[in-house]
Amino acid sequence: MTPQTRNSASYARRYELYKKLVESTLAGIVKDRLPRSMYEPTEYVLAAGGKRIRPVLLLLSCEAVGGNARKALLAGAAIEILHNFTLVHDDIMDHSASRRGRMTVHMRWDTNVAILVGDELLALAYRALLRTQSPHIQEIAKIFTEGVVEVCEGQAYDKEFETRSTVTVDEYLLMIEKKTAKMVAVSAEIGGLVGDGDRSSINALRRYGEHIGRAFQIQDDLLDIVADEKELGKPVGGDLIEGKKTFLLIEALRTTRGRDKDLLVDIVRNKGCDPGLIPEYRRIYLESGAIETARCRIGQDIAKAKRELHRLPPSRALSMLEWFAEMLLNRTY
Amino acid sequence: MTPQTRNSASYARRYELYKKLVESTLAGIVKDRLPRSMYEPTEYVLAAGGKRIRPVLLLLSCEAVGGNARKALLAGAAIEILHNFTLVHDDIMDHSASRRGRMTVHMRWDTNVAILVGDELLALAYRALLRTQSPHIQEIAKIFTEGVVEVCEGQAYDKEFETRSTVTVDEYLLMIEKKTAKMVAVSAEIGGLVGDGDRSSINALRRYGEHIGRAFQIQDDLLDIVADEKELGKPVGGDLIEGKKTFLLIEALRTTRGRDKDLLVDIVRNKGCDPGLIPEYRRIYLESGAIETARCRIGQDIAKAKRELHRLPPSRALSMLEWFAEMLLNRTY
Repeated sequence: MTPQTRNSASYARRYELYKKLVESTLAGIVKDRLPRSMYEPTEYVLAAGGKRIRPVLLLLSCEAVGGNARKALLAGAAIEILHNFTLVHDDIMDHSASRRGRMTVHMRWDTNVAILVGDELLALAYRALLRTQSPHIQEIAKIFTEGVVEVCEGQAYDKEFETRSTVTVDEYLLMIEKKTAKMVAVSAEIGGLVGDGDRSSINALRRYGEHIGRAFQIQDDLLDIVADEKELGKPVGGDLIEGKKTFLLIEALRTTRGRDKDLLVDIVRNKGCDPGLIPEYRRIYLESGAIETARCRIGQDIAKAKRELHRLPPSRALSMLEWFAEMLLNRTY
Repeated sequence: MTPQTRNSASYARRYELYKKLVESTLAGIVKDRLPRSMYEPTEYVLAAGGKRIRPVLLLLSCEAVGGNARKALLAGAAIEILHNFTLVHDDIMDHSASRRGRMTVHMRWDTNVAILVGDELLALAYRALLRTQSPHIQEIAKIFTEGVVEVCEGQAYDKEFETRSTVTVDEYLLMIEKKTAKMVAVSAEIGGLVGDGDRSSINALRRYGEHIGRAFQIQDDLLDIVADEKELGKPVGGDLIEGKKTFLLIEALRTTRGRDKDLLVDIVRNKGCDPGLIPEYRRIYLESGAIETARCRIGQDIAKAKRELHRLPPSRALSMLEWFAEMLLNRTY
């Protein structure tokens, strides 16, 4: 075992520990409340698991500026509850039937319940956030709120893009910055504020979050076509089948000509494709350079994220944030 | 002209002035933002008008403890935006086609837009609230959040009652306390906090809000059956036609026997009634004493609300709050 892999194993264990802390905080927030018609599906959502990336990142950011991670638990829970609010409402809008191997709220209950549970989650997120002990609470709440506004704007762009025939790479990047990267950046920034870090460290953490957030989303688009089906846990090529305007599709549309371009335009026109065509599209994505461009962007963002960390003093939390960025880069699902 | 009516006219003018101030604050919040797919319907909602009861109450409460009403404008706007968030989402859940004489958001656009616009309104409400200058901002945000949680709980009970065969008067009162009265109380309480009032004045304002909020909702139920159709602006008896479990229906179910009771049970069983039966149900509501009980409750709540005001020093704002309670009691639409 090299020192590198030894560290990696200890970081992974620590990640699991932080995840558990967040999950028990979440469980305490919604236990045994009335009316059950609303709180039962709310508990169902918060117990669904998932990677819990945002709250763990918030706890680590708090530690990286010298704060106590436990003091950031409520803020971490708030970020995770907020994330789940977006999932519940997005699933209604996208007509998604399942998430994390379970039925979505609007399928298991109904759309009305899912709307209300989402609303309640947003309120519970603020409740947890505002219980955080910090002299910076007004700033923390403002940053959190700007995150919510941008998540909504990002989702609006995302839905708008579905019905448009063309979307530029810049428009796509604006959308994922709002829909995904902003809230990851907010997590890191709030962690730094709860830890009472100095402004320059907090800004570095925020930019770190922006970079890994954007890399994470492009990685998601990439994995949909290059991942191993068993590892991914869902059919490869799902985005193509659904006709989603991913980074790969937009980039390949930009660079191809002739028959390949026509095939890509078919995806947009027909709002999806037959599963049998996935290998053909994978070839186009490869030959057009779209996959290489995506990998490049992800690599650059991760490198920039890691460079931001150099502005902070060395610590175990900082090394873990570095490991965290690497892990996102190398993830296969 | 008696001094009483002269005051009343000047209060009404002042009410209109405060309404205008709130409305121009609201308009500034959403002007010219992108993406238009989300902000255009958001502007549409906030420009719909309405009585603006909650923000005006907030401004008056601020003044009643000696504060400057203009300092409370952002908090007032926040309360009104929050109220509109609940209307947009409730309209989806209730399948309502129109509100204030215009199409609802989910009808004019679609359900996805309405879900997203509601979410965005909630975020914008927090943004306006957190811009309020006050040393009590964390407490203000917490009180606001508890209001949001209870509004969601109230809506959950309301939807739950629709599918239940029996609802008690106490359950009904719990529901309207959460769905309506709480946020009116929160408006008054936040106004008092922004005005930097003492705790006992702020508590009195909160209880004043609770009482008028509850009276307002029962008055709504009452007007549906006793109002003049022209003044009400919508068909009389709408709640009966839709089979809504109002205070009157629940109270009449409790006190009647025999054929009248059977007719009331029909409303619940058939989830509504034929418009031709409205006069018959009006007779039952009258003879069962339900209308008298409702009037009594409203009168008691308004009297209690006014008594709470006596705990504050006399001022023009305080007299206006008294007038405001009277006005709610005497409203005909």
